[in-house]
Amino acid sequence: MSSEIEYKVKSRVWILTEAGTFLGEGRIELLNKIDEFGSISKAAKSMKMSYKKAWELVNSMNTQCKEPIVVGKIGGKDGGGSVLSETGRKLVVQFNQLNQETIEFLNEKVSKIKWG
Amino acid sequence: MSSEIEYKVKSRVWILTEAGTFLGEGRIELLNKIDEFGSISKAAKSMKMSYKKAWELVNSMNTQCKEPIVVGKIGGKDGGGSVLSETGRKLVVQFNQLNQETIEFLNEKVSKIKWG
Repeated sequence: MSSEIEYKVKSRVWILTEAGTFLGEGRIELLNKIDEFGSISKAAKSMKMSYKKAWELVNSMNTQCKEPIVVGKIGGKDGGGSVLSETGRKLVVQFNQLNQETIEFLNEKVSKIKWG
Repeated sequence: MSSEIEYKVKSRVWILTEAGTFLGEGRIELLNKIDEFGSISKAAKSMKMSYKKAWELVNSMNTQCKEPIVVGKIGGKDGGGSVLSETGRKLVVQFNQLNQETIEFLNEKVSKIKWG
C-alpha cells in the first residue's frame, strides 16, 4: 500500500424552479444531442431514452423559461425536426460554465483539506 | 403566472479515492446515525438500510482512510457497539463545511446568471 491516499472530488449541480428541476447534467446532454441530431426522437434514441420521456423533459424546460429552449425547425432538406433556440444554446453554455467553475472551486478547496 | 421565474441551485458533492466513493451525503448520514445510536445496526435500521449494506459502507470508508473512521466501543452499560473515531468526527465536519461552502459559492454565482 502506498503511504499517501489521493483524494479527489466530484460534484453535480442542478438548476431548479418552483416547478422542480429545470437543468441538470442529463437535461443538458439531451439538449446537446437535440442540437447535434436536429431531432428530439433521434436525440432520445442516442441516449436510450423513450421519445415520451425526452419530450416531457423538453416540455418541462420550455415551460420553466420565458423563452422556448427547443424550437421547431422550419423547412430545409429534411423539413421539420427540432433545434435549440438562441436561449437554449446560451443556457447550455451557462450551465457548463457553472459546472466547470464548481469543479475548479472544489478542486482548490479539497486539495487543502486533510482527509486521510 | 408571475412575470419573473425564480431560479435556485442544488448540488451534491462526493469525495473519491482510487477505490471509488469515499464520502458522500448518504455515507455522512450513516456516520451521523452511528454516532447518534452508538450502533451500526441501529443506524442502518433508522435509514431502512440492511446491516450488510451499512457494514460494507463503513468498511469502504475505513479502508480508504489511514485512521479508522468507525471504531468499536469498549465496555459501558450497553457494552460493544460502534462509535465515530476523532478522525470520523473530523471528516463529518469537514464534509459538511465543504458542502455548505459549495452551496454558498453556487448561490452567489447563480444569482448573477440570467436563466430565464
